[in-house]
Amino acid sequence: MSVQREGRLMTAAVPFDAWMQQELDAVETALAEWVPLDAPAALGEVMRYGVLDGGKRIRPLLVLAAADAVRGERAAALRAACAVELIHAYSLVHDDMPCMDNDVLRRGKPTVHVRFGEARAMLAGDAMQALAFEVLTPDDGSIAPALQARLAGLLARAAGSAGMAGGQAIDLASIGKPLAEDDLRDMHRRKTGALLRSSVLMGAACGSPDAAARAALAAYGDAVGLAFQVVDDILDVTQASATLGKTAGKDQHHNKPTYVTVLGLEAARRHARELRERALAALASGVLADSARLAELANRVVDRDS
Amino acid sequence: MSVQREGRLMTAAVPFDAWMQQELDAVETALAEWVPLDAPAALGEVMRYGVLDGGKRIRPLLVLAAADAVRGERAAALRAACAVELIHAYSLVHDDMPCMDNDVLRRGKPTVHVRFGEARAMLAGDAMQALAFEVLTPDDGSIAPALQARLAGLLARAAGSAGMAGGQAIDLASIGKPLAEDDLRDMHRRKTGALLRSSVLMGAACGSPDAAARAALAAYGDAVGLAFQVVDDILDVTQASATLGKTAGKDQHHNKPTYVTVLGLEAARRHARELRERALAALASGVLADSARLAELANRVVDRDS
Repeated sequence: MSVQREGRLMTAAVPFDAWMQQELDAVETALAEWVPLDAPAALGEVMRYGVLDGGKRIRPLLVLAAADAVRGERAAALRAACAVELIHAYSLVHDDMPCMDNDVLRRGKPTVHVRFGEARAMLAGDAMQALAFEVLTPDDGSIAPALQARLAGLLARAAGSAGMAGGQAIDLASIGKPLAEDDLRDMHRRKTGALLRSSVLMGAACGSPDAAARAALAAYGDAVGLAFQVVDDILDVTQASATLGKTAGKDQHHNKPTYVTVLGLEAARRHARELRERALAALASGVLADSARLAELANRVVDRDS
Repeated sequence: MSVQREGRLMTAAVPFDAWMQQELDAVETALAEWVPLDAPAALGEVMRYGVLDGGKRIRPLLVLAAADAVRGERAAALRAACAVELIHAYSLVHDDMPCMDNDVLRRGKPTVHVRFGEARAMLAGDAMQALAFEVLTPDDGSIAPALQARLAGLLARAAGSAGMAGGQAIDLASIGKPLAEDDLRDMHRRKTGALLRSSVLMGAACGSPDAAARAALAAYGDAVGLAFQVVDDILDVTQASATLGKTAGKDQHHNKPTYVTVLGLEAARRHARELRERALAALASGVLADSARLAELANRVVDRDS
């Protein structure tokens, strides 16, 4: 499968916004090519609704920036970027269903089950998870088999019971219960942190970082992953649904413990800034070829208003 | 992770039933080791309920028999056997949920959502799919990375929108509608056939079959995959729930087209026998090191009463 790669702006001197737009376009083009148009019984249509044309694409951007930081292979990084977004998107489709969060608004549109029914939403989510691993295992020689295996292993562990799915299980079990900050952190390290961290690690795996660079990227991924969730908890109480593109105030509605309920709003904001500093400090060691975009991504994760 | 492999009966002279029991034990032991006991919020307990201690394990047996037929690597074949069973088991967990078939009995026990609730059933299914790819990508050197990538690619494509999930989408869309035999075959080739066929192909990938052996195994996998579903359709109308360990008569209850409704009971039985002959003919070309167990599996698939 050929994906447009001509004219990509390669130099670190490219302004961040131009780089970001170029990468968002590349990810959208690749997803539009790889999420099937022709799956049986319009299943592809449901999958495309769930993943195309929406979302901030933080995870793909982390993959691509981390790959650039280690001069990683472009073809592999683009596939990893799309695969991690497919996992994220499937988790939202399932999480929005009536038996979970029962939400009706996502990425500014009706949720998948509202639009297509619960059965097709569940199936499309299942197929999106499988597609993530299809995307990582091309048989056209575009990614070395050993790298395919490494990327699939990282993604599966981030998505599975020790990572995202496990975090969601804690989330479910903790509705209406007070959580200590340590337990809240453990939940978020899994629920959102594992996939964000794996985005950085997958990007890194597309190159050959030495041990110091790997450690710097892992520490950065940890901090950014947690910062993302702290900010999400803050935005849930400070922003309107129209700004977020999803239902605001739903943590409180579901009586879920969050960084805001556990720490208070001001302390949560301080914590997000501390995590940003920790992420930037990890990059500051100078072991990476080019960490400016990763640094700017950490800033955007913390400063975002949606 | 160490799995007991001592004392395995290696010779083709071992009676089929002894071989089968030995392999069922090996699969159960490996699954019990690989499906986590310690996942957060008891998610591992739900996953274990969904996959341990039940089912005919046809897919793992096909993997292991196909691997033996090409003198394939044992460690890889056992992982592939468990991975394909995890995909099958997750699909049953999701398929039984109220938004799909709304079933209460599976493998002789209450279905997962009846026992643990819908949210945990959905999450456990999701985590089981991820676990299948975790199992295929060990980082302990026990499977060559290129083989990990090949197995993950085969399994992802069999599970995804062109395979199992796509077949389930057709199934959903065809409730209450008459299907021509060709359309019914297309549905079943995907819904159950793809995973059964991939079981044979994954087993084959654990060795180095030549083109003729690969073609023979693919033809065998096609025929056995379809035969399995034809027999399933027959058993749904001829057997009691207690014998099946799942709700009998549910195709009719859901007004689903089946081989029995499309062909009639006697023609469906004839068709199952024809498919068995086609499977056995594929093996009879003599290009496989040892196809006796695959042949006997085809017989068991067609002659089974549950």
